[in-house]
Amino acid sequence: MRDFLPADKARRERVLATIRDRYRAHGFDEIETPVMEEYSRLHAGIGGDNEKLAYNVLRRGLDADAVRAAAEDPASLTDLGLRYDLTVPLARFYATHRGVLPAVFRAVQIAPVWRAERPQKGRYRQFVQCDIDIIGDPSARAEAELAVATLDTLDALGLAGAEIRVNDRRILDAMLAQFGFAEAERPGVLITIDKLDKIGPDGVERELLERGAGADAVAAFAAFLARPASAAELPFGEERIRAALPEGIDEEIIRHVAGIGAAVAAARGTGTAPVVFDPFLVRGMGYYTGTIFELAHPAVTYSLGGGGRYDGMIGRFLGQDVPAVGFSIGFERIVDLLEEHGESRAPAVVLIHDRDVPLAQLLAAKTRLLDGGARVRVEQRPKNLKALLQRAAADGYRSFVTLSADQDVDALEQRPLS
Amino acid sequence: MRDFLPADKARRERVLATIRDRYRAHGFDEIETPVMEEYSRLHAGIGGDNEKLAYNVLRRGLDADAVRAAAEDPASLTDLGLRYDLTVPLARFYATHRGVLPAVFRAVQIAPVWRAERPQKGRYRQFVQCDIDIIGDPSARAEAELAVATLDTLDALGLAGAEIRVNDRRILDAMLAQFGFAEAERPGVLITIDKLDKIGPDGVERELLERGAGADAVAAFAAFLARPASAAELPFGEERIRAALPEGIDEEIIRHVAGIGAAVAAARGTGTAPVVFDPFLVRGMGYYTGTIFELAHPAVTYSLGGGGRYDGMIGRFLGQDVPAVGFSIGFERIVDLLEEHGESRAPAVVLIHDRDVPLAQLLAAKTRLLDGGARVRVEQRPKNLKALLQRAAADGYRSFVTLSADQDVDALEQRPLS
Repeated sequence: MRDFLPADKARRERVLATIRDRYRAHGFDEIETPVMEEYSRLHAGIGGDNEKLAYNVLRRGLDADAVRAAAEDPASLTDLGLRYDLTVPLARFYATHRGVLPAVFRAVQIAPVWRAERPQKGRYRQFVQCDIDIIGDPSARAEAELAVATLDTLDALGLAGAEIRVNDRRILDAMLAQFGFAEAERPGVLITIDKLDKIGPDGVERELLERGAGADAVAAFAAFLARPASAAELPFGEERIRAALPEGIDEEIIRHVAGIGAAVAAARGTGTAPVVFDPFLVRGMGYYTGTIFELAHPAVTYSLGGGGRYDGMIGRFLGQDVPAVGFSIGFERIVDLLEEHGESRAPAVVLIHDRDVPLAQLLAAKTRLLDGGARVRVEQRPKNLKALLQRAAADGYRSFVTLSADQDVDALEQRPLS
Repeated sequence: MRDFLPADKARRERVLATIRDRYRAHGFDEIETPVMEEYSRLHAGIGGDNEKLAYNVLRRGLDADAVRAAAEDPASLTDLGLRYDLTVPLARFYATHRGVLPAVFRAVQIAPVWRAERPQKGRYRQFVQCDIDIIGDPSARAEAELAVATLDTLDALGLAGAEIRVNDRRILDAMLAQFGFAEAERPGVLITIDKLDKIGPDGVERELLERGAGADAVAAFAAFLARPASAAELPFGEERIRAALPEGIDEEIIRHVAGIGAAVAAARGTGTAPVVFDPFLVRGMGYYTGTIFELAHPAVTYSLGGGGRYDGMIGRFLGQDVPAVGFSIGFERIVDLLEEHGESRAPAVVLIHDRDVPLAQLLAAKTRLLDGGARVRVEQRPKNLKALLQRAAADGYRSFVTLSADQDVDALEQRPLS
């Protein structure tokens, strides 16, 4: 958990304001849920491994007897917990408020989540997530709107050149079935396939055999990985997707994925879309049921976000399935990436006054500068004026004004800092 | 704890953006601290009654033995808690980062806090506080800057006409000493005096006697309350303050309070300041050491904020006293007050497409509208178009566009909603 000093906080707020503005323009409605949810909801099996990392809040008014009884049942000490993601609260929110929400509900959430991670570099126990979700639309329109809004947002942040990798869980399932992996072993097989970029085809083959996956299936998969790559030459589209897959994958799924790319290209007014089909993209969460995404950018080797379709989850809260698809951008990673970029360009002035300037004159001078549209910091003239000016410049101030007791506040002269 | 639906969330964000913009302009630097603080810090006696309302977080990795042992010492179940205010975290923040902060540090914090209140109307368990604080400046300049920034912020929110009531804890102390209240009974006496507006002079006299306060002191106080009010006629200033008090109050304190009013008047370019001296203003928190404030507005009978000087608190964390003064505006009350006001004025368009419009054409049309600066919501044409248009108007959309499969996306016609 971190404190944010003024320069960091200002940068975070600038990034947040851009994200909020772009997602709002694309028709997403911002919502907010309480940071605490009921314990039973946070531990309903939807959050995957993150459930184990939830911070739980001590139940109020526990007496000694209750605490003693809790030795046998520690969960009885708690009834609320801090959310570990924004998807579980969104599903609960939608189930609660469905009656007053549009039939197709586009939500944006920008808010902190908490995970009791072991301390390690680059992992925070409190961090901000930015999620957009479309609930109530089973068509590829939803995926395409998420992709276009996200690419536009990255452009607005000064991160043009991003690319979206796409796959579909149903494609992965169909492929694994064709290779001959039994249904029960497929979740484990997916975990290994997810490492393809890191350990390569040979590494994947070895790990699958170590897992005890069926030898014939592993051999079929290895042969498929080793076949000559012809698909990479083709532009994104049905033909490209078909060529990257074994035969016999449902044509409707292929059309769904290809449709996303075509729509993104049309929306961006470019001939080809910044969308790449990757038949071995997996994404960790168990709740995905269709399209899965990952956001890549040439400036970094790690992903800047991801998401997918989770048509089954809302039903867990509502008792009735509702199609849903979401995309989460990695706010903390984006802020780190923008570290060097973008200072605020609003005028900012340091008003340096002599010790004997009357308070009324000083504040009248401050008002004059504020009325001129500037941000104003007041400082009493110190012994070391140079150090003060340097510090103000480092804090983003651009000019300074001095004020003595005999000076007219209507005749202030701004001089540049540095 | 509340969910915020899109219209509420949008209003909250608009209010936050205005507050952030104005306080920033006035030279306050925004900071952020983690929502959880160490248990020992939250329960150090600084937070007053709020400490009892803290939500505490269950310590990780408790085993049955540890839980059993905790029956004798429930605090051992927890090591972190959710903050119940922003002042304790600010003091901790300042003590941690003092070396890299300006000598006079102006902080703004806009963030949620949590209190385990009993459910009752108008009380929330999670709510947003907006605090500005100036650390390192013992002079009335600090009070005046807080007051001017706050009044300017209320003006910008459309709540012109606000007024700041001022008093000083040292004045209250000196008055009570003069009337003859013993030092030990003064905190209780202040609790009763705080009710003067509600129960009147007779009620205060009765309650003081019931409390067992010294009868002579109560009689002296009652006589003072009953004397003819001549002070109210005078304009704000030293003479006005002196006339409202018993004789013998330290002249330096009177000058300090009068100086705030003069500076606010000068800053706002008005002859008289919207500052009122109230010798019986108390404010609840025990940590105040000097000036105390309350923010009033003619539209409401309750206060919209308050604050004061707490020169002793930072020293509790730093081991060295540092002057500090803060002002907190009641964000939730202000949002409620603005409920009827201020919709966003950005153009917002609903794009209604026929079912057979290709996805690529649809998203190209959306991009055209976005490029025109509008916020865009996409809807498939429903059976009941009128209901859809009404709902969009209620959600703040201003116009709509229809799109059929044979239509050119460069020739979209916007029509007003309703």
